[in-house]
Amino acid sequence: MTTYFSEEHSVEAVNGRMAPDTDPRLKQVMASLVKHLHAFAKDVELTQAEWDYAIEFLTDTGHLCSEDRQEFILLSDTLGFSMLVDSINNRRPEGATENTVFGPFHIDDVPVRQMGDVISMDGKGEPCLYIGNVQDLEGNPIEGAVIDVWSDNADGFYDVQEPDTQPRGNNRGLFTTGADGAYHFIGVKPPPYPIPFDGTVGKMLAALGRPYYRPGHMHFMVIADGYEKIVTHSFVAGDPHLERDAVFGVKEQLILDFEKVDDDEVEWRSEFDIVMVPTP
Amino acid sequence: MTTYFSEEHSVEAVNGRMAPDTDPRLKQVMASLVKHLHAFAKDVELTQAEWDYAIEFLTDTGHLCSEDRQEFILLSDTLGFSMLVDSINNRRPEGATENTVFGPFHIDDVPVRQMGDVISMDGKGEPCLYIGNVQDLEGNPIEGAVIDVWSDNADGFYDVQEPDTQPRGNNRGLFTTGADGAYHFIGVKPPPYPIPFDGTVGKMLAALGRPYYRPGHMHFMVIADGYEKIVTHSFVAGDPHLERDAVFGVKEQLILDFEKVDDDEVEWRSEFDIVMVPTP
Repeated sequence: MTTYFSEEHSVEAVNGRMAPDTDPRLKQVMASLVKHLHAFAKDVELTQAEWDYAIEFLTDTGHLCSEDRQEFILLSDTLGFSMLVDSINNRRPEGATENTVFGPFHIDDVPVRQMGDVISMDGKGEPCLYIGNVQDLEGNPIEGAVIDVWSDNADGFYDVQEPDTQPRGNNRGLFTTGADGAYHFIGVKPPPYPIPFDGTVGKMLAALGRPYYRPGHMHFMVIADGYEKIVTHSFVAGDPHLERDAVFGVKEQLILDFEKVDDDEVEWRSEFDIVMVPTP
Repeated sequence: MTTYFSEEHSVEAVNGRMAPDTDPRLKQVMASLVKHLHAFAKDVELTQAEWDYAIEFLTDTGHLCSEDRQEFILLSDTLGFSMLVDSINNRRPEGATENTVFGPFHIDDVPVRQMGDVISMDGKGEPCLYIGNVQDLEGNPIEGAVIDVWSDNADGFYDVQEPDTQPRGNNRGLFTTGADGAYHFIGVKPPPYPIPFDGTVGKMLAALGRPYYRPGHMHFMVIADGYEKIVTHSFVAGDPHLERDAVFGVKEQLILDFEKVDDDEVEWRSEFDIVMVPTP
């Protein structure tokens, strides 16, 4: 047994301190975290100055977090950590709609809409018909599925980012499918946008020479009794940022055609069927 | 090449995004960090709820940080990360005085004292003579070494923790050695104390059933031209918390006898020679 801390036995020294009756899952998670954090410091022989910088970075990141901003989520997103956790927890069979990151811009008080409604309330942007079916793996329609959608506006901002100029609920809506499982609504073709880059995460991305745009996308969260919840996006095919999404949210299956249409009401049309998996 | 993110190639997807002309050291550190963080999430198959908890924990930790408190340093300390970084950066030959954690309680405006001075200004505690020599590996005295010392008071608090009741500079002093390399001063025998446990770190330690005391110790920081800086403590032999220091600072070599003495001026005597290594 290690009594005192040493570089060689650093992990054992720390993990050996946990009480025997610690919750087993907590013990497992913390032991692994300590093991990997120590391995990181040893791998790169982290200097004292780098440690100082890390403490300052984390502190500044914490101070940026408020009711309206979550810089730690942004940090997790840009390190691919959010997508990894999402992937681990949402492995689905072939044919099912894949998950992607939830993102920080969802709100709970989404306006309830009727099928066919226009969700864009600021009169900006290029109208787009969103249409598709919610169905199971065999193609049967799912009735009573609740579809929660949200996107940025034509300027690349969500309503919560511009509370003074956008009506709350702009480009958001909550729909419920009927017996046919179908949905359709009119939003705008979502433009790409930069993630907030005036904070610590922006500084990190700049130092790494990493792009900070997200390709245009419409968020979908779909909930139906007896099925696994889906949190996903539909990405605009052809968007120049698809291969460099700052938060790694893009999956091949989620890149969808936005077709130009000859129509009085809309300029674009995007079809996206949502395929749900029964809960075990 | 990986175009889009996948659970399997998560590390390559993230690290492949760094620009070719990124500073090589930054690239190395970030690539290793991403690799180990992802390995952690995969090892334990981190759940979404655990991720949510981690984001909240980090946010709360950031909000606790202020001019007067550094909860992220405390987190690093209690995960053994600070000691690890200290160990990696202060490998010394046999016979040299070992380093230990700096801790959050040092101040820059330390009162300059004369050899033999009493550093305890609140009249509390059991007086102790601190005595020893600053020398090189061959035992030659080091002249002009600056010794910066600090400890808690008899109640277990540093002056900065009790600005209303302790005079600033209480149990602190800055001494400079003469030609003989010797030092001596009178402080108090330092009692063990709990690290601040009313924050997120305290919550973590409680959940892990981990002790949150530090054994009694006197801090020493010694600087001399031509020698490596030493940041260390002398720990009180026999302290019940030696084998469970909340921040893993204890090293066998740094545990020192505090002898009871029969003297008018002091009750205790602690001898600690400081052996410095030439800078390369």
